[in-house]
Amino acid sequence: MNNKYDIRAKEIDSLLCVGLDSDFAKLPEGFRALEFPQFEFNKWIIDQTAEYTASFKVNSAFYEARGDQGIRELKMTIDYINTKHPTIFTILDAKRADIGNTNNGYVEFIYDWLGFDSFTVHPYLGHEAVQPILDRTDKTTIILCRTSNPGARDFQDLIVDGKMVYEIVAKKVSQEWNTNNNCMIVVGATYPEEMKKIRGIVGDMTFLVPGIGAQGGSVEEVVKSGLNSKGLGLIIHSARGIIFAENPKLEAQNLRDEIRKYSA
Amino acid sequence: MNNKYDIRAKEIDSLLCVGLDSDFAKLPEGFRALEFPQFEFNKWIIDQTAEYTASFKVNSAFYEARGDQGIRELKMTIDYINTKHPTIFTILDAKRADIGNTNNGYVEFIYDWLGFDSFTVHPYLGHEAVQPILDRTDKTTIILCRTSNPGARDFQDLIVDGKMVYEIVAKKVSQEWNTNNNCMIVVGATYPEEMKKIRGIVGDMTFLVPGIGAQGGSVEEVVKSGLNSKGLGLIIHSARGIIFAENPKLEAQNLRDEIRKYSA
Repeated sequence: MNNKYDIRAKEIDSLLCVGLDSDFAKLPEGFRALEFPQFEFNKWIIDQTAEYTASFKVNSAFYEARGDQGIRELKMTIDYINTKHPTIFTILDAKRADIGNTNNGYVEFIYDWLGFDSFTVHPYLGHEAVQPILDRTDKTTIILCRTSNPGARDFQDLIVDGKMVYEIVAKKVSQEWNTNNNCMIVVGATYPEEMKKIRGIVGDMTFLVPGIGAQGGSVEEVVKSGLNSKGLGLIIHSARGIIFAENPKLEAQNLRDEIRKYSA
Repeated sequence: MNNKYDIRAKEIDSLLCVGLDSDFAKLPEGFRALEFPQFEFNKWIIDQTAEYTASFKVNSAFYEARGDQGIRELKMTIDYINTKHPTIFTILDAKRADIGNTNNGYVEFIYDWLGFDSFTVHPYLGHEAVQPILDRTDKTTIILCRTSNPGARDFQDLIVDGKMVYEIVAKKVSQEWNTNNNCMIVVGATYPEEMKKIRGIVGDMTFLVPGIGAQGGSVEEVVKSGLNSKGLGLIIHSARGIIFAENPKLEAQNLRDEIRKYSA
């Protein structure tokens, strides 16, 4: 079991996750001119926000977009976090999932070569497919359950014997996939009613919660719908709203404080 | 619409897809000692099998496992195919899917930076999420429908109003996602009955078919269950059975011939 998130969240009294979605095209010009633009930008954001954040999430897509150069800067970013802030829980939002042993490639890439604590995984291929990821008991597997986007309804809301597919995913993950106690699930901030239902299904399992801010999710609703019995159980993610703000430090502090206000 | 696969398949009368799943640990020792082991191995396989194959599929996991070095060799591999064999249809089996514009990172990586014709995509986040991938009308989006692994049953076989989830995916993709006529779906060779049903739902849409050989799928059953009304509609994939065989050229030729025998 990897307790790192809970320990960090308690230690600094914060459920905030800063998202390093450092889209090259959106970086300030000064950074774009540097040799390692995404890494230098991230370093700047990390230095400003680390004290407020329990977790950093990095979306792989923004780095892969730049090919091997992006992958190098992704590696530099995670190395910087692991060296300077080794107690912060790290997530690669990679949304992977292949079958069986093929997943070992992703495990080697994300856990061993890069050095993240966790990554996000699609459930569609089923339990047996994801087992090699779950087998890494020193790490955390974060399974997509109820995503924050409008299209989430297409398949996640299909009704099977009176239950929606996302409820079945939540139940299976909590009862069958989580035997090593190393699973979390993704539950979007934009669906607080669904979040409440899922909390009822999975007990204290932690939710990674995207969708605050630009996507329209409310901090108050998320905290009220999602907190677990220990006053934890939420990783409340914000990317654009912090990293591209005029004052990222202040935005991180404000969001941490807003979360604290409702979870007190 | 990207017709490349059909044109190539007809031109060389082959529905074969050679899978460059060049797991570093499984490469012959002579290759492992080279500066670019995965690329050099792939080059050797490509040179031997190109005349028999309508498509090359590369599974991203085996390259990501080696970090930025693997990504470089993935790039060298696709460049080699595109230069030496520009009429061969190329697939990155990346099993990606994020929400909305985040997918642009994958589009840039796989289509623009690498230069593949297509990549595989998880359906779980729904239509709206995948739209930026579908919007690339010069390319082909291959959506996971019925995968070849045993765990496929966990969610893909859930029953919604008398239909299984994979049937609903097949129907939605063919009727709603495929407005640009640039979708294919993944249908595992290990489930020929399901393949027949899916063929009935989607008309002539092409199936990427993994699961022949090591996973137990039968060429005869696949061809009989999956061929479309034009005698095409199948991309029959084999990786280990060809690339790690004593004589990859002969294995590719034999599999092409076996497919021909049943599809004649």
